[in-house]
Amino acid sequence: MGKLLIVGSIAFDEIETPFGKTGKILGGAATFIGLAASQFKVELGIVSVVGEDLPKDYLDLLSERGVDISGVEVIKGGKTFYWKGKYHNDLNSRDTLITELNTLGEFNPIVPENFKDADVVMLGNLHPNIQLSVMDQMKVRPKLTILDTMNFWMNNTWDELMQIISRIDVITINDEEARQLTEEYSLVKAAAKIQEMGPKYVVIKKGEHGALLFHEENVFFAPALPLEEVFDPTGAGDTFAGGFAGYITEARNVSFESLKNGIIQGSNLASFCVERFGTERMLDLKKQEVNQRLRQFKELTQFNIELT
Amino acid sequence: MGKLLIVGSIAFDEIETPFGKTGKILGGAATFIGLAASQFKVELGIVSVVGEDLPKDYLDLLSERGVDISGVEVIKGGKTFYWKGKYHNDLNSRDTLITELNTLGEFNPIVPENFKDADVVMLGNLHPNIQLSVMDQMKVRPKLTILDTMNFWMNNTWDELMQIISRIDVITINDEEARQLTEEYSLVKAAAKIQEMGPKYVVIKKGEHGALLFHEENVFFAPALPLEEVFDPTGAGDTFAGGFAGYITEARNVSFESLKNGIIQGSNLASFCVERFGTERMLDLKKQEVNQRLRQFKELTQFNIELT
Repeated sequence: MGKLLIVGSIAFDEIETPFGKTGKILGGAATFIGLAASQFKVELGIVSVVGEDLPKDYLDLLSERGVDISGVEVIKGGKTFYWKGKYHNDLNSRDTLITELNTLGEFNPIVPENFKDADVVMLGNLHPNIQLSVMDQMKVRPKLTILDTMNFWMNNTWDELMQIISRIDVITINDEEARQLTEEYSLVKAAAKIQEMGPKYVVIKKGEHGALLFHEENVFFAPALPLEEVFDPTGAGDTFAGGFAGYITEARNVSFESLKNGIIQGSNLASFCVERFGTERMLDLKKQEVNQRLRQFKELTQFNIELT
Repeated sequence: MGKLLIVGSIAFDEIETPFGKTGKILGGAATFIGLAASQFKVELGIVSVVGEDLPKDYLDLLSERGVDISGVEVIKGGKTFYWKGKYHNDLNSRDTLITELNTLGEFNPIVPENFKDADVVMLGNLHPNIQLSVMDQMKVRPKLTILDTMNFWMNNTWDELMQIISRIDVITINDEEARQLTEEYSLVKAAAKIQEMGPKYVVIKKGEHGALLFHEENVFFAPALPLEEVFDPTGAGDTFAGGFAGYITEARNVSFESLKNGIIQGSNLASFCVERFGTERMLDLKKQEVNQRLRQFKELTQFNIELT
């Protein structure tokens, strides 16, 4: 069975959308990535840090789904990373109301011995130095290393970001961030420039407008499934990444064809994530529902034109 | 051979983009629709109106491509519809600087006798009364009637617009217009509401984010081909519509599968249109180039996931 190591935050999220608001609920990149990846037959481990205030139930939700949480450090007397945000009416933009890094501010990741030979490493959005530290702890070069990042690190830790980007295989980034990283408006040109920085594969996430996979001269596109209602976009990008990484790890295949399927699997799972607040939908998601929606993805995109 | 009747403007366009500006060049919905549809083996006729100021060369460009222009009225001493616009840096929005309706303001469409039994009718963006008049002149009910419209007619001629919408089979409309027409933000809900107004098929154009085809419970999506450079978006929507209508007319098949292929063919041709100013690229487009890019569309979207 393929082994997937996930590094990222476990957090308290507090969310307001036009449809309602939550109290403090379970969130964080590693949580969403882990829940999505747990849909696949893989050995899963998370490296993260939380405070003593995180309910034990939350970590249990992960371990019940077969996630190895021995790499999740619980800091005595510490507080868990806390994010509060409010979405605008179109759900395409949001205001961050509160960010308290708490224990995440001093996060010193320790990769458990049994995950130092992971086949795939998914580096969730974090300080590049944390991502670099994880890479340095691996005993065997992973078959595929996937990096997620965001504009904050471009603005504040450019040199460290360039260092980690030069060492990974796949970067996942949104369209605006790809433009900022390369100063190219065209995503085709931006993806080419990013490949020169190191990654062989560039995944550009366009939210409700789908995702693009670039590799050399090849481009693949997966739309987001058109939904009647998007309830809460929180975690959709991480769920996408988790589905992508989980599929590739299960398939034990890092070819372009395999990554294409990963993009579809990630988009598919993300379409569930946005249907309810936070992790709610992902926690009760059945394999049968996943497969049924994959069929919808096929119907949405597959055609048959005879070329003359 | 299938017969396609196109009704729409023939115009002078004057365009400014971040890459340069033109003088008065050939434009107009019927022009772009006709050039795109002329890529297919169909009998093509245009109903339009122009002034005496339109160079004869411009109409020759259409008739040389097999377009029957006997339905294009030339008004003695009249001036041709003139539009001048300037695109913003991202090419996604533009300011209209000048609109002179001229002869188009009094357009009284006369369908030539030999097109009153057209298989497919493409009603380009015009006053709904003009579109209704064309429908009334048809001797045989067309196998498919396609309507393009825009927000201007929603704001100014709601009742007439509702009348024409209730009588056609396919509406093509952009995302913002679909939302305005239905007061639904979700495009899935908007498309369902529009189907209740009459059209069996709803095509929602999202510009660089592709196009959706809705029919009952079915949805199909075609992305726009990711391009290194978009030079001038003018006419892309009409080129899309022309490729869509042209393909369906050639195929002599109005099933959902056929319309799906039409969406791909339209997207494919639109990807050429934006590569140069105005009609420039469409005028020298070779079948071989079209087919090669269709192959790119397949590579961009087709995948193979085994469902368990």
